[in-house]
Amino acid sequence: MAEKKVKKVVLAYSGGLDTSVILRWLQKTYECEVVTFTADLGQGEELGPARKKAEMFGVKEIFVEDLREEFVRDYVFPMFRANTLYEGQYLLGTSIARPLISKRQIEIAEQVGADAVAHGATGKGNDQVRFELAYYALKPDVKVIAPWREWELTSRTRLLQFAEENQIPIAHDKRGEAPFSVDANLLHSSSEGKLLEDPAVAPDEIVFQRTISPEDAPDKATEITIDFKSGDPVAINGVAMSPATLLTRLNELGKENGIGRLDLVENRFVGMKSRGIYETPGGTILLFAHRNMESITLDREAGHLKDSIMPRYAELIYNGFWFSPERRMLQALIDESQHSVNGRVHLKLYKGNIILMGRESPNSLYDMRVVTFEDDEGAYNQVDAQGFIKLNALRLRLGAQAGRRGGGL
Amino acid sequence: MAEKKVKKVVLAYSGGLDTSVILRWLQKTYECEVVTFTADLGQGEELGPARKKAEMFGVKEIFVEDLREEFVRDYVFPMFRANTLYEGQYLLGTSIARPLISKRQIEIAEQVGADAVAHGATGKGNDQVRFELAYYALKPDVKVIAPWREWELTSRTRLLQFAEENQIPIAHDKRGEAPFSVDANLLHSSSEGKLLEDPAVAPDEIVFQRTISPEDAPDKATEITIDFKSGDPVAINGVAMSPATLLTRLNELGKENGIGRLDLVENRFVGMKSRGIYETPGGTILLFAHRNMESITLDREAGHLKDSIMPRYAELIYNGFWFSPERRMLQALIDESQHSVNGRVHLKLYKGNIILMGRESPNSLYDMRVVTFEDDEGAYNQVDAQGFIKLNALRLRLGAQAGRRGGGL
Amino acid sequence: MAEKKVKKVVLAYSGGLDTSVILRWLQKTYECEVVTFTADLGQGEELGPARKKAEMFGVKEIFVEDLREEFVRDYVFPMFRANTLYEGQYLLGTSIARPLISKRQIEIAEQVGADAVAHGATGKGNDQVRFELAYYALKPDVKVIAPWREWELTSRTRLLQFAEENQIPIAHDKRGEAPFSVDANLLHSSSEGKLLEDPAVAPDEIVFQRTISPEDAPDKATEITIDFKSGDPVAINGVAMSPATLLTRLNELGKENGIGRLDLVENRFVGMKSRGIYETPGGTILLFAHRNMESITLDREAGHLKDSIMPRYAELIYNGFWFSPERRMLQALIDESQHSVNGRVHLKLYKGNIILMGRESPNSLYDMRVVTFEDDEGAYNQVDAQGFIKLNALRLRLGAQAGRRGGGL
Amino acid sequence: MAEKKVKKVVLAYSGGLDTSVILRWLQKTYECEVVTFTADLGQGEELGPARKKAEMFGVKEIFVEDLREEFVRDYVFPMFRANTLYEGQYLLGTSIARPLISKRQIEIAEQVGADAVAHGATGKGNDQVRFELAYYALKPDVKVIAPWREWELTSRTRLLQFAEENQIPIAHDKRGEAPFSVDANLLHSSSEGKLLEDPAVAPDEIVFQRTISPEDAPDKATEITIDFKSGDPVAINGVAMSPATLLTRLNELGKENGIGRLDLVENRFVGMKSRGIYETPGGTILLFAHRNMESITLDREAGHLKDSIMPRYAELIYNGFWFSPERRMLQALIDESQHSVNGRVHLKLYKGNIILMGRESPNSLYDMRVVTFEDDEGAYNQVDAQGFIKLNALRLRLGAQAGRRGGGL
Repeated sequence: MAEKKVKKVVLAYSGGLDTSVILRWLQKTYECEVVTFTADLGQGEELGPARKKAEMFGVKEIFVEDLREEFVRDYVFPMFRANTLYEGQYLLGTSIARPLISKRQIEIAEQVGADAVAHGATGKGNDQVRFELAYYALKPDVKVIAPWREWELTSRTRLLQFAEENQIPIAHDKRGEAPFSVDANLLHSSSEGKLLEDPAVAPDEIVFQRTISPEDAPDKATEITIDFKSGDPVAINGVAMSPATLLTRLNELGKENGIGRLDLVENRFVGMKSRGIYETPGGTILLFAHRNMESITLDREAGHLKDSIMPRYAELIYNGFWFSPERRMLQALIDESQHSVNGRVHLKLYKGNIILMGRESPNSLYDMRVVTFEDDEGAYNQVDAQGFIKLNALRLRLGAQAGRRGGGL
Repeated sequence: MAEKKVKKVVLAYSGGLDTSVILRWLQKTYECEVVTFTADLGQGEELGPARKKAEMFGVKEIFVEDLREEFVRDYVFPMFRANTLYEGQYLLGTSIARPLISKRQIEIAEQVGADAVAHGATGKGNDQVRFELAYYALKPDVKVIAPWREWELTSRTRLLQFAEENQIPIAHDKRGEAPFSVDANLLHSSSEGKLLEDPAVAPDEIVFQRTISPEDAPDKATEITIDFKSGDPVAINGVAMSPATLLTRLNELGKENGIGRLDLVENRFVGMKSRGIYETPGGTILLFAHRNMESITLDREAGHLKDSIMPRYAELIYNGFWFSPERRMLQALIDESQHSVNGRVHLKLYKGNIILMGRESPNSLYDMRVVTFEDDEGAYNQVDAQGFIKLNALRLRLGAQAGRRGGGL
Repeated sequence: MAEKKVKKVVLAYSGGLDTSVILRWLQKTYECEVVTFTADLGQGEELGPARKKAEMFGVKEIFVEDLREEFVRDYVFPMFRANTLYEGQYLLGTSIARPLISKRQIEIAEQVGADAVAHGATGKGNDQVRFELAYYALKPDVKVIAPWREWELTSRTRLLQFAEENQIPIAHDKRGEAPFSVDANLLHSSSEGKLLEDPAVAPDEIVFQRTISPEDAPDKATEITIDFKSGDPVAINGVAMSPATLLTRLNELGKENGIGRLDLVENRFVGMKSRGIYETPGGTILLFAHRNMESITLDREAGHLKDSIMPRYAELIYNGFWFSPERRMLQALIDESQHSVNGRVHLKLYKGNIILMGRESPNSLYDMRVVTFEDDEGAYNQVDAQGFIKLNALRLRLGAQAGRRGGGL
Repeated sequence: MAEKKVKKVVLAYSGGLDTSVILRWLQKTYECEVVTFTADLGQGEELGPARKKAEMFGVKEIFVEDLREEFVRDYVFPMFRANTLYEGQYLLGTSIARPLISKRQIEIAEQVGADAVAHGATGKGNDQVRFELAYYALKPDVKVIAPWREWELTSRTRLLQFAEENQIPIAHDKRGEAPFSVDANLLHSSSEGKLLEDPAVAPDEIVFQRTISPEDAPDKATEITIDFKSGDPVAINGVAMSPATLLTRLNELGKENGIGRLDLVENRFVGMKSRGIYETPGGTILLFAHRNMESITLDREAGHLKDSIMPRYAELIYNGFWFSPERRMLQALIDESQHSVNGRVHLKLYKGNIILMGRESPNSLYDMRVVTFEDDEGAYNQVDAQGFIKLNALRLRLGAQAGRRGGGL
């Protein structure tokens, strides 16, 4: 794994100023061929300009791809099967996009015979870790170039100066520094840094891009149904949709109704706390709907087992270990649980609220005959409860008799 | 532990029709002295009538006690230190009240020399388990009488007939069957059964007692601050309050703003799924505030460890194992984590939403100096990230070199 | 699920005195047809007599089956993939046999149109739970008859009297009470009760049936190799063997060398502690070999994840939840980990000791090139360690700077 | 946390060749004052020479301390309360010694006004991580010097040359390279590297220092008793002993009887697998005794909870996070469980075997009255088992009725 000269590098290229500077910097610093890879993961930007710019920099191999369906089907939905929340609140919108980008980048590197890959993530964040762990897991001998950890362009002034010296176009609104940094894909948008660094101060309304505020949302509720098959959503209001189409539609519904905002101080894998403003309109609805779909279709202990491993699963994804043995093992456990998570959830969306209106399933384990306050015709024998309690109590009684009253130790 | 004749029994007595029937039935069936115990846990009912009725039945030893402060301080708050949610959604409002009632009941039994205790919980629910596990853990040789599992009054008609025959007053609105069953205390109210048994149908607005609906809540937000000390809330808007007073105030704030409703299908310990409508206005605000207070004051791994054990802790409380060695051990772990969970959380309450406006703490671990996008003056060395990633990746690289690409197994 | 009259019952029948009494008692008490099922799970007894006795009692449908291969292949080996130990010590030899017996019993019930099943386990033990949970999970409406919990033959005297009155042959050595109770199968034998009830007293040598004592074992070591494929043992000393054959051979090797004894006080699911003497000669060797096979073939985090869920998995099997969603989910996770657990372990067996002599694998992740104290030619860059440590330390440093020295809270 | 010039450094100094070279190298490279700290943790070496050598190098502040009692009392015993095993086998003998050394080193640094600390651990191992995480947690601004990651003395030849040029005495047996590397303290000795790098080859008998082989152990068993108080051993054969005295005595007993050898391939925190030969004679006996002491004194769920968190606790210690919030939280949970772990365990030591002869306790939860096969006089009602099983089975039955037979999903 010794250092070696780079011949060809595949760059994760957005077409923006920063990765354009990286593109040029790679060409100059490593004197190597640069291949660009630009993916549409639903970030909401045109990809055409990225191709044009890459051509302008003399890039010969340019990859521009729409990965939205793969993203939602193979990454977002599997993650939602686990009701995944990092630190109890975060839907992992950024984390879950990185493995797919890395995977395609490595596939392209194999295809074009590149020996290196590069990304535009900074040296303080989690994304560098996510990109690079995936790179190494997929191609262990790859050379990874992380310009933000290497170069001398450490201030905005220097970076702009480098751009000017190298004929890199600078959008007017990029002259000054952005008041905060944004990442987006079909699952969410995140905003952080600068203006948002003080966690004692609420974010300005200008920060939000994917949602209107609950206050501004219409005073009239929207009712929808979501259908699930094997734990994944497959239809809205009875209309079957592809994964990306469905998530796009949920995003619209969430946006209009002020759903999915999160103001979070989270703990980064690299060791510090950071503050992010996240908007996950469709994902927030999906999590709620999935959990309630499970509530009538999933066995108790299956659900409790899932809940108990979820924090670890979320941590793995957050930390960048999607392509790891342990994530695959947990996924096997999770997927095993979802065969009967089928049915329909009925929701009302209203000014930031998701209100459950009903759930039904051909695979329901909810049995009115057993639970009823009315006569259950022998479905449940109340006398059984006494023995159940007596034996559950036995160790506590023996403990109390030995002087350890009240579960003492 | 053999069966024996009962001399004196302490009954958890609400003063309502059902426990009045139980009282009389105990006197007749067991021909024993009955002692009543009526506790104010914030259920919102007058306790005076309970005393009067007990006197009417010839009860000589009558205990009527206000336990609200003890309830919130020693049961609710310790549970909230863990951000406890059962099955991802339920704040355990009923579960957490049972251990305290049981404990006092047993203390009274010891005081008055009773050899038995009785409760009015049915044979299908969780409450019978919670009461009885606590009884047995605290007084292992106690005789437990659960009339609903024993008696012949298995229909409403028979129960009313027994009441009439025994001069038990029946309120006019109790003649017909209630459309659903209600339990309430300072933390929450729950409604279940009968009218609410079909999970495909949303609850009627008439079900809700502790909250107005988000739709009916005022279109103007309420801003508040909550101060924490060692993980427990101590003040609202800077005004220090006792535990019960504080929770009462949060309940009012939540109620007015349409906060804290939950429509849940949950899994009972006795083995079936059931559906409940819960209202936990103050608790919902408190959970949100506590988690965000922790977000800046708790170490990452401390928080993750808490998250990983929380589902087990919630399950224990739900199942009735408050007075158990394992609950005490988990509580020791949780309490150990809260010493520095001090500070203030600033919230906006609006039509069902709890919106975070800020958090600050004298014990904050959030360090703007380190996390900043600006020059951090050496607080964090970006070069360290490379070694960090390289060694985290090492096992994945060695795996890939051995043919297990992408974290394969 | 109401009680109903029994038409035909399938009895798990060993042919011994107790289950013969049960057989006759069932015929008399339930006036129903009894079908017997006798399985060879390697308990080391002839099955012929069981058939003869059943015929003698007029049983028309008699099932006698050799299930040894299925037992080891589908129950024992899957369990060993997890390095399963209950309470840190117990190899679950009894627990793992019950699900298979129950499964066949239910299959036979379906085949012969029986509406009930019966077993000979007592009302204090775990086995009743294991049998019945499996019955109910496989045939939810089955009627379960557990004579030991029902009948009036509660003393040895009465049972013998019933046997005499009903022409049930009583072996001479069964006239008096056995000094302890024994259960055995291909994985282990267990002895418990009576003579063995005082945990302060060591078991007499007479108790042991499957092993000679370390003291009596030869003073000369036996060396063997075990080959693994996908986590299961497939050959001894290079000779491929079927699962049951292999375990039989390991049992011989263990027996001769005094390996696999355990004197345990364990916690039963029904709530009390009990004391058992277990002999698991082959299983003890297998556990040791499997763990060491994994040590060079399993990824670190895959192994740690397995270790972290193992206690729960063991508890499930011990408690009788083999046929449960949660066991299936854990099994999916475990099995996913074993694809590359291939290779050979070299052992020395000597007077109770299992001594590791070497392990090798075509899928080894142990890389001498990386770990070497010698020059590693760049396989590992020691400078990376600094960054790795620095970032792992970051939260601790920030904590210490905030006054929480030494990881304080 | 920017780099700065070093004024005074506290070196963890063994007095051996390597740390002597480091001492001199620090003086020359950093031109700073060096303070030496030499601790007796039971490694079995004279400390006098270390002082003399330090004087010879002109060291003015020399600390030589006997930390054996503190080591065993505050580190070893707390760890053993959890029955701690890393990766199912390793007793963590090296890992547990590092935090104490680091703590004293930092205390000395504070006392003498040093701004840096240094250790002699290499860049590939776990020890560098353990030392440095502890340093940073205790003194977050300390400068850490890890010569093996910095210097140019990367071959044995160069190191010896430096020693000669700097008048560092070289023992005759250090001229050639050692065939493997050794670490030792009162809990264990470890040997690794070079000769031992091939895991397919068994270690030569010459490697072992703390134990004779089972083959060489006497053919006569030694019987002992160990008394516990609150989970810690306090006496052998009824003779009360201080922690270090007791562990020393257990080491002798283990050594003589061939107990405590381990040949392990383990997973290092820095990412690779490594192979070590460990000898932990006393610790192996202690683990066995403690677990069996707990078997009669610890509640079932308390024990299971401990078992479930143990792997994480072991990992924390192995990885160097002794001084962390999460280790403290887990310790609180563990310690809470040990109040009643009192009593006596009776053992027989024989040729590598530890054989349990009995256990007894004033706090025993084992109740012969309940568990007995004989008439229990009503201590346990067998009828209770039916209700217990029925309700445990309920969800499985409902699942099966919904088409998910056998716990299907």
